[in-house]
Amino acid sequence: MTLVVGLDGDDTLWHNERLFSMTEERFRSLVAPFAGGTDLSSSLLETERRNLRLFGYGVKSFTLSMIETAIEVTGGRVPVGVIGELVEAGKQMLDHPVELLDGVAETVASLAGTWTLILITKGDLFHQESKLARSGLLPHLDRVEIVSEKEPSTYRRILDAAAVDPSDFVMVGDSMRSDVEAVLDIGGRAVHIPGYREWAMETSALGSPDDGRWWRLGRFAELPSLLASLG
Amino acid sequence: MTLVVGLDGDDTLWHNERLFSMTEERFRSLVAPFAGGTDLSSSLLETERRNLRLFGYGVKSFTLSMIETAIEVTGGRVPVGVIGELVEAGKQMLDHPVELLDGVAETVASLAGTWTLILITKGDLFHQESKLARSGLLPHLDRVEIVSEKEPSTYRRILDAAAVDPSDFVMVGDSMRSDVEAVLDIGGRAVHIPGYREWAMETSALGSPDDGRWWRLGRFAELPSLLASLG
Repeated sequence: MTLVVGLDGDDTLWHNERLFSMTEERFRSLVAPFAGGTDLSSSLLETERRNLRLFGYGVKSFTLSMIETAIEVTGGRVPVGVIGELVEAGKQMLDHPVELLDGVAETVASLAGTWTLILITKGDLFHQESKLARSGLLPHLDRVEIVSEKEPSTYRRILDAAAVDPSDFVMVGDSMRSDVEAVLDIGGRAVHIPGYREWAMETSALGSPDDGRWWRLGRFAELPSLLASLG
Repeated sequence: MTLVVGLDGDDTLWHNERLFSMTEERFRSLVAPFAGGTDLSSSLLETERRNLRLFGYGVKSFTLSMIETAIEVTGGRVPVGVIGELVEAGKQMLDHPVELLDGVAETVASLAGTWTLILITKGDLFHQESKLARSGLLPHLDRVEIVSEKEPSTYRRILDAAAVDPSDFVMVGDSMRSDVEAVLDIGGRAVHIPGYREWAMETSALGSPDDGRWWRLGRFAELPSLLASLG
């Protein structure tokens, strides 16, 4: 049997949360002097949650939420120079070099010789395309799908368009909700490779790996042997 | 012969520039008191141009560029309350009702009975999907392609994926560069329906309509009879 392998982008192929964490730390140290002991991380997360419906995911959304939070929690006392630094921090995130996770470059190249590979990544279209172009991975991918949400219906639409049966599809990613549960839901299989940290907005009802439906790996480089045992 | 008709979104199916213009006016009146006579429209456009490489198109990019410009042109003298109002202005743009252009609802419904329709729209993935969902037009569209740029290669990729020969394809849109020139370039045909205003970043070398390759219409509702004469 031949497999179609779906690969998540952020924190599966390349570092992402690490950069958000570093920027959040910078946000905290810039805003704290004017915030009178407010828990800035919680406030920022609350703003992000509230804005998700309007903004969607991505660095530009995050930057706008940092600015909104800085003004809100300081009651407008934050200096405008700090706002300028937050805009600059967002731009530095967008301009940051794409850093592949350990083993990804060689492993993706080797998988490409064996299976059909589809990148299925969530977030800002422009920034995801930019990261992909700089990743060097594009020549190994058969299809690229950049989506605004990873719901079961998203995967169903992508597999329909590619004429792939869900039973031939294995999704690989760091998010239990977006990469594992949503794919099991439509009858596919999945491999969970935990990332830099679980994102605070994501939780999962699934407990431990269920042989035959989903697996958990510690490193991306373990993927070829797992897939070989399935295909 | 049967035609595949590509439809642009912003300022072809629904109002867009009008909302940007109104927000820019608000930006000017908010920032002018602190900007000492600077030409704020030119400064904003310059910031947008400079940021395009990092930000791409869309409301979130525009909002961040408004904030950056407000800080820059006032030498940091703009009050932080104004920044808060700019963030709010961006959110109001994202939350603004989708207003279809005159005749679009009926015309798209009637075209859908005759031709294959593909929405091909440039911009922020999340916001375009949100606008499309609220437009009521989705049931009439055979495919939806949200792209970060409309280059000839973009159209070639979309037509390849849909197995459509460029000679059967007619693109309809308000941008000479993105909707007309790029499509003529790959051997397709195009209909230009000028929008609310030509966007300052876009210019065209093409002069007047060239019968047999591209046409210009004053209103969207004139489309069915033109297409009927081609198909």
